[in-house]
Amino acid sequence: MTTYKLTYFNLTARAEQIRFLLSYLNVDFEDVRFEFEQWPTIKSTMPFGKVPVLEIDGKVVNQSVAICRYLAKKAGLAGGDEWESLLIDIAVDNIYEIRQEIMKYYHEPNEEIKSKLHESIVNDSIPFYFDRFEKIVSENGGYFVNGKLSWPDLYFVSILDHIKSVTGVDLVDGRPHLTALKHKVLAIPQIKSWIAKRPKSLL
Amino acid sequence: MTTYKLTYFNLTARAEQIRFLLSYLNVDFEDVRFEFEQWPTIKSTMPFGKVPVLEIDGKVVNQSVAICRYLAKKAGLAGGDEWESLLIDIAVDNIYEIRQEIMKYYHEPNEEIKSKLHESIVNDSIPFYFDRFEKIVSENGGYFVNGKLSWPDLYFVSILDHIKSVTGVDLVDGRPHLTALKHKVLAIPQIKSWIAKRPKSLL
Repeated sequence: MTTYKLTYFNLTARAEQIRFLLSYLNVDFEDVRFEFEQWPTIKSTMPFGKVPVLEIDGKVVNQSVAICRYLAKKAGLAGGDEWESLLIDIAVDNIYEIRQEIMKYYHEPNEEIKSKLHESIVNDSIPFYFDRFEKIVSENGGYFVNGKLSWPDLYFVSILDHIKSVTGVDLVDGRPHLTALKHKVLAIPQIKSWIAKRPKSLL
Repeated sequence: MTTYKLTYFNLTARAEQIRFLLSYLNVDFEDVRFEFEQWPTIKSTMPFGKVPVLEIDGKVVNQSVAICRYLAKKAGLAGGDEWESLLIDIAVDNIYEIRQEIMKYYHEPNEEIKSKLHESIVNDSIPFYFDRFEKIVSENGGYFVNGKLSWPDLYFVSILDHIKSVTGVDLVDGRPHLTALKHKVLAIPQIKSWIAKRPKSLL
């Protein structure tokens, strides 16, 4: 049996997508969560100085999106042909892109710049991206791609709480198709069970 | 026959990886390059307000990395099994990550902050990433993954001129395995022919 060991902060953030997919796959995984004060020591041991990393049968791999795609293939959530896989990859990268923009705001050290960035992401970038996501999901039978569950749906729902903590914005509010998608994903038995048992975390 | 139409600025930047892969595939493609003053008009017609986009048989798709992966599969450069594809995706995302950091510096509007960012990417981030890439390529038979050509190799070489223009740093300088990889990729007949015929561009 393949062993999985995930290493990350005690946060959802960049690891929750991986935890969602591992849960969806119904596999046991070791969910190692370290404290912020341990980070400098751990950082120096990471392949590119970042987390999350996943150990798969003892082999350490980084890059959360690549890891999710690998797990999504195992879960049958990565597309039935090359065109569908392309649409799925695009959906994930669109979500990832706005997530990165939001995190750029969050990590901005200068308070004045940070405040301007907050204004622009709340008033411009979030509506720009999430209104488009709403339209895409409304035109694709309630999912991001081709009227059926695929990993962008899980990816999307996995970041909602985190982005709400970081921006104060509920991304599905006023977007009925995204709201319905969120409820559908949260009702998947493995996801429901994961959320019920996962450790409480700050973000 | 599938038709391909690429739309981008007259730059290498985020489109050259796609042009490399289309060239590698030996397919004809329309290489639409617009001027900066046309951008505001074109931007409003793009699915997520960004370029490049590729039209494949008239269907417009965005997200350059996802597009490259799709083309790489057709080219047989995306891995022979799921594990190899994972290693390939990780390699690309590592390259993409440092490219994003470099472009963050490049687009910084505040000159004082930009100068500090330049110092930190030249002295810290570039050596951090590219020394690791050098090691990876040295340990993998002269390629990023498993001793054979895959799309991270093309991706890597496609950004070298652009990053040199933006940072002043030759990323393969002093890194013999990356230098050798660059020469190997540039010697591929389709890539060599593409570079000989491609339009001159600023970056």
